[in-house]
Amino acid sequence: MSIEVVSTNTSLGQAMSGWQQRVNNLLDKNLPADNIQPSTLHQAMRSSVLLGGKRIRPVLVYAVGQCLAAKQSILDKPACAVEMIHAYSLIHDDLPAMDDDDLRRGQPTCHIRYGEAMAILAGDALQPLAFQLLTHLSSHLPDKNVLQMIEILAEASGSRGMAGGQAIDLEAVGKKLNIAELENMHIHKTGALIRASVKLGALCQPAVTPAQLEALDHYGKCVGLAFQVQDDILDIEAPTEKLGKTQGADAALNKPTYPAILGLEESRKLALQLHEDAISHLQIFGDSANILRELSAYIIGRDY
Amino acid sequence: MSIEVVSTNTSLGQAMSGWQQRVNNLLDKNLPADNIQPSTLHQAMRSSVLLGGKRIRPVLVYAVGQCLAAKQSILDKPACAVEMIHAYSLIHDDLPAMDDDDLRRGQPTCHIRYGEAMAILAGDALQPLAFQLLTHLSSHLPDKNVLQMIEILAEASGSRGMAGGQAIDLEAVGKKLNIAELENMHIHKTGALIRASVKLGALCQPAVTPAQLEALDHYGKCVGLAFQVQDDILDIEAPTEKLGKTQGADAALNKPTYPAILGLEESRKLALQLHEDAISHLQIFGDSANILRELSAYIIGRDY
Repeated sequence: MSIEVVSTNTSLGQAMSGWQQRVNNLLDKNLPADNIQPSTLHQAMRSSVLLGGKRIRPVLVYAVGQCLAAKQSILDKPACAVEMIHAYSLIHDDLPAMDDDDLRRGQPTCHIRYGEAMAILAGDALQPLAFQLLTHLSSHLPDKNVLQMIEILAEASGSRGMAGGQAIDLEAVGKKLNIAELENMHIHKTGALIRASVKLGALCQPAVTPAQLEALDHYGKCVGLAFQVQDDILDIEAPTEKLGKTQGADAALNKPTYPAILGLEESRKLALQLHEDAISHLQIFGDSANILRELSAYIIGRDY
Repeated sequence: MSIEVVSTNTSLGQAMSGWQQRVNNLLDKNLPADNIQPSTLHQAMRSSVLLGGKRIRPVLVYAVGQCLAAKQSILDKPACAVEMIHAYSLIHDDLPAMDDDDLRRGQPTCHIRYGEAMAILAGDALQPLAFQLLTHLSSHLPDKNVLQMIEILAEASGSRGMAGGQAIDLEAVGKKLNIAELENMHIHKTGALIRASVKLGALCQPAVTPAQLEALDHYGKCVGLAFQVQDDILDIEAPTEKLGKTQGADAALNKPTYPAILGLEESRKLALQLHEDAISHLQIFGDSANILRELSAYIIGRDY
């Protein structure tokens, strides 16, 4: 099976660009204005979240919602919430005590612009904002769905999800991980929030069945891991200006990566396998899941 | 009016010590075990939360719940949640980039024991755990109460609550604040979470009336500020070994405090005024609010 890089000419490209624009506008609207006190904190939060990026997590929320014919206005809140959690994790990840990155999406990182203390607080304040946004869904969805969404996002962000993955990552630096350990790290670090994005999108359709939820959860698990494998490949292959972060940063930090353990060719094969596994669970949706098939292909075919 | 320090001989002292023990046991139970992976992260979270302390916020949850005859088993989850948010804020507050404190409750701070990166992650992971705990209330309370509690806690923790107060604090160091600016800082930094604790306790009684909620919210606002005034007084007066943190730490950091602006005597008067204001709103509850009256007196009479 050959994977083509999705360009903005394709239907996915158009959908993605529409969703990216939509979520950018909504993030702008849902973040406190930067003239509201405490203004420096709000500026730090806004500039980090509104820096752009692929918005893969919101795109997944919208794509799953489209597959299930959920209302776009309902999808907006989880789309923003998952991106706020992602943005906070990047701010903290870039801190000197963590990855010590000066550059993010081609721009100075939050602590470079606002100082370490303000960057810590900006991340801290984005997290509850994400949960608060989800509570506002209660006028659009049954309360039990909203509570389930909050629980899923909390679990995915916490010590048994994303923050736990970061802790595993931290302790893995300089160690030789085997492939199972590397996978365990990424299932938590990147995978948990991507998987949660898929589930949150699904729960925006009140009529979603348990079988549909299960199939989508499997899809989310596979694309979450595929995303990370491709990220590791790009860390080696893509030039700094395209990546928006320093090329070879993982290698320089002596971080375990898929190419380091499997080699580049095997890593590419693994990404393809994960893609095939992901789409194999979409059959029950028929053609309405085409956008999710294309998105999975995009995730392992992207070049930045 | 004279204020006496509450000892364990009084009814409040007994109630407090029972609630403290109860919440300590529950925190222990609700935190991931330290042999669950990622174990270092879980150890860092546990050791920070389980270090002890006055547990003022959980005590407020239980005391308000007792006043309204709410079920104690329902109060347990918000009691743990507010303490987890408080504990995360202390971990981040102690970081070198923030207050740079080596000592908390007489013990080495989280980053001293586990390193800065792990301390950042421990704080990050405690926050979603608090929200997750609240979602588990849905089997005991109407879902709309639970969602309201999550929104209140999120708002109180975020940029317009506690994290916002920290940002104001950060920018105030070395500046000359007037009393209104100092109050604004503390209403956010300490006051918001204390006020939220009172509201969360009240919402554990499904039959709570809007008038009761409003009266308790006023009480929470006053004791939140009184707590901080007394904290500032103790920073000057109490010896390091009793305080469990370095005496005069605020003054050494050139932080604005009530005694620095008003003087010690006026600060004591302000604390007393706030206490009187707090209890003036409890009349509608009659004798059932006695525990809240005693607690307010304790807050401004405590010596550590």
